[in-house]
Amino acid sequence: MKLWLNGTIADAGDTRIDPADRGLLLGDGLFETMLVRKGRIAFFEEHLLRLTKGAETIGLMLPYSPDDLLQACRTLLQDCGLLERERASLRLTLTRGPGPRGLALPPDPKPTVLISAAAGGQPPDHVSLATVSPRRNPWSPSARLKALPYLENVLAKEEARKKGADDALILDTNGLVACSSAANIFLWDGDLLLTPGDRSGILPGITRAVLLELTSSIGIEARDDDIAPQRLLCATGVFITNSLMGLVPVSRIDGQEISAHPMTARLAAAYELLLDAAASGN
Amino acid sequence: MKLWLNGTIADAGDTRIDPADRGLLLGDGLFETMLVRKGRIAFFEEHLLRLTKGAETIGLMLPYSPDDLLQACRTLLQDCGLLERERASLRLTLTRGPGPRGLALPPDPKPTVLISAAAGGQPPDHVSLATVSPRRNPWSPSARLKALPYLENVLAKEEARKKGADDALILDTNGLVACSSAANIFLWDGDLLLTPGDRSGILPGITRAVLLELTSSIGIEARDDDIAPQRLLCATGVFITNSLMGLVPVSRIDGQEISAHPMTARLAAAYELLLDAAASGN
Repeated sequence: MKLWLNGTIADAGDTRIDPADRGLLLGDGLFETMLVRKGRIAFFEEHLLRLTKGAETIGLMLPYSPDDLLQACRTLLQDCGLLERERASLRLTLTRGPGPRGLALPPDPKPTVLISAAAGGQPPDHVSLATVSPRRNPWSPSARLKALPYLENVLAKEEARKKGADDALILDTNGLVACSSAANIFLWDGDLLLTPGDRSGILPGITRAVLLELTSSIGIEARDDDIAPQRLLCATGVFITNSLMGLVPVSRIDGQEISAHPMTARLAAAYELLLDAAASGN
Repeated sequence: MKLWLNGTIADAGDTRIDPADRGLLLGDGLFETMLVRKGRIAFFEEHLLRLTKGAETIGLMLPYSPDDLLQACRTLLQDCGLLERERASLRLTLTRGPGPRGLALPPDPKPTVLISAAAGGQPPDHVSLATVSPRRNPWSPSARLKALPYLENVLAKEEARKKGADDALILDTNGLVACSSAANIFLWDGDLLLTPGDRSGILPGITRAVLLELTSSIGIEARDDDIAPQRLLCATGVFITNSLMGLVPVSRIDGQEISAHPMTARLAAAYELLLDAAASGN
């Protein structure tokens, strides 16, 4: 497989990350994962906007324009033979680049931009969740960024797997529902759609934002809310969302069956249509 | 400068980190930073014990024995011309190595071990702290590990710098004192020495542990406690500790002057003696 690194496409085996890269040594960077359908990147602008805003938050300049990066992604997809695939994915990683020892920001950073592409699998029909011990930190500025530090999520996912579930249900430090290991979470309270808000230290997911906008246009009332875990168990339906999977119903939480809300499928279908429309631009 | 990577010493420029390394992509790994004085590594065993325990916690096997790693460190110090230096430092980085996409643990991980060495500067005579917005998460298993994700600490340090201070005073999500961006914190309450405990989601520092043990042997009463930030301001002395700096008095917090406790210097001197004794073994 080929990779794009700071303007050059090469075989992964010939691509070298500097051992002094702060992305490796300190988790000092951000990333975006994007869905590609038949060669079109879904919500590319939204992903780049989140990346650019996140870079500003951590005091980092994106060294390429969105147009340059779109072109880089397209070329990489082509070189990887993924343009014709029904589904593929892209990951764009931005780090502060190599730096001297210590936490202080390098005075003249040379950021690393790495793009990889992969053939994409079909999302699961449904997932089971298990409540795990790591909790989301609402006081963390980086919790709201798609930042490189994902060890906590890795440990959460592994704990869920050991409990026999597909993914983790992560609460925040106040004990409210936050997210799964790599997805936002929604629940149906009757026909009202609810999702944890910024107060829970969640990543503001692209799919989450698109859905919240989409619901109003198709007559579904949706908003964010403080969600106690008990509310999930008596919900009339629960699903998780992220850019690669779209909407995936949650079938079980901590072994307890969760009902399937008929509106989830309707919303998923509406999202698919929007996704094709959004992807047609690039 | 030369680096040791998975058994091979080479120039940094010839050392290649795999772009699929989970350390880079997910912060999936750990590290240790060790002080070297005249070629002797201080508290090597303690660092290796913490690393090994941390690796167990995240489900990772250290692919080299402590003896192999000690030999690797020594050889690297020699090859870098740092054996004769008064002060140097070593950083040992352990990652889960390259892996396929996603958070799930690779079935057959090939961990990356990277060791770098640097000439060490003199620690500062004192530091000023500023309270910052990121807070330490007591619900985080990785907060208690010396894990690669340090973006939060990078942001904390940068926020402190912008406030005109040398380092960050980081509280926990309950609003209690936790640590600085890369050091534990101690305060004198009269002649009683206090430091935040595990409840605050702190890293269990090697220097912190050594000091807590040392105090009893020289007749100082010391223990961990819940510490409200107000207590720091009326303390009879405050200092921070880490492996590279040892003990460094805190001169100011949020612009307010902190008194210098005469016992800090005495404790620092006792720690220096212990450090030489501990280092003489390797």
